[in-house]
Amino acid sequence: MKLVGMLDSPFVRRVAISMQCLQLPFEHQALSVFRDIDEFKKLSPVVKAPSLLCDDGTVLLDSNLILDYLETLASQNNAENRLLLPTDVAQRSQALHCIGLAMIACEKSVQIYYEWKLRPVESQFQAWLERISEQLETAYRELELSLSQWPAATKPSELDQVLISAAVAWRFTCEYLPELVPQWQLPILSELSQWAESRPEFQRAGFGEEPYPVMPTGAI
Amino acid sequence: MKLVGMLDSPFVRRVAISMQCLQLPFEHQALSVFRDIDEFKKLSPVVKAPSLLCDDGTVLLDSNLILDYLETLASQNNAENRLLLPTDVAQRSQALHCIGLAMIACEKSVQIYYEWKLRPVESQFQAWLERISEQLETAYRELELSLSQWPAATKPSELDQVLISAAVAWRFTCEYLPELVPQWQLPILSELSQWAESRPEFQRAGFGEEPYPVMPTGAI
Repeated sequence: MKLVGMLDSPFVRRVAISMQCLQLPFEHQALSVFRDIDEFKKLSPVVKAPSLLCDDGTVLLDSNLILDYLETLASQNNAENRLLLPTDVAQRSQALHCIGLAMIACEKSVQIYYEWKLRPVESQFQAWLERISEQLETAYRELELSLSQWPAATKPSELDQVLISAAVAWRFTCEYLPELVPQWQLPILSELSQWAESRPEFQRAGFGEEPYPVMPTGAI
Repeated sequence: MKLVGMLDSPFVRRVAISMQCLQLPFEHQALSVFRDIDEFKKLSPVVKAPSLLCDDGTVLLDSNLILDYLETLASQNNAENRLLLPTDVAQRSQALHCIGLAMIACEKSVQIYYEWKLRPVESQFQAWLERISEQLETAYRELELSLSQWPAATKPSELDQVLISAAVAWRFTCEYLPELVPQWQLPILSELSQWAESRPEFQRAGFGEEPYPVMPTGAI
């Protein structure tokens, strides 16, 4: 399988980290949706990151849909595989609640960045910026509260999809919108992020422009 | 369960239609993320549609994550339930490929609508509008091609998640961006949409501002 997109995207990064945890080997092509449009288009015509090219050539889009496929694949490949989402329905709804908040935090961070940093000043729209900034802050406050009730977040020992999603969201916002972060008191999320970023799966898919390393055969 | 959000959103609508197909009863609160912010916030603080309020009070966000929960719930509730996604991994990847394209079409339609119709003219950004318009057109052309290889789309007999997602996307674009639609030749998608909109599940969750009807006890 081939994962296309840059690891400064939290959506790409959560897939790259999840694939390691699910023991699914992949190649990574670190193409930018802005700078590498023509090359990206050849692999995934709508130029959307992440794109996952499956072994049969099927192109999957949207990190949640990609992760659905990867969990299904991992569960069928090997019954011993540790999955990243609980199968128990009550626990799964708690996990999906946290992941939903983390994904809104990513989406609103991207929207603020696009509005603030990529648009010419004259075409920025203040009412929109205020609306999405409030949504971002609320999403992180709700996520902090929810993580306080997710035992693996306060005493993390191994990665699951809640921890991966929360940690990639937080790192992205810290890197792209550092002006906003000091206003928020989010100790659980900050500690979780520090723990997650020290894990080998996070380090190999490090935030930024570097591609995920080519791994020797047999290793992930 | 309670579904919050307006049925003019394709993301809300696909959940409302899927819940009927999965035989999961729900109440619907047709709140607008623009006009009903205060009331929305009380139910779902980040003001994001759709929000699904589970019976234990958990709030789920993002239609793909909500549908993950609903499929898990339906499969555990009753083994006889027809699910909306194939469990076979190869078929599932084909389905997720189509759904990914339909969701990009929704996302780009929303972005174009926001840019074009909700922003003051002076803060519209032409380069962005051109970029997302091209992505929208590509997503629909790729979806049309993919539907030609999804047997249930060319001879539909019952709803699945590919058909639901493609049909709600297309209706939304036709309603909100009618200027763009005549430029595209998408016969499979147009016929599929016509068939889907005639189904009772689509009619009960009709496009627009009307809420999903309160159903008598025992019915969906």
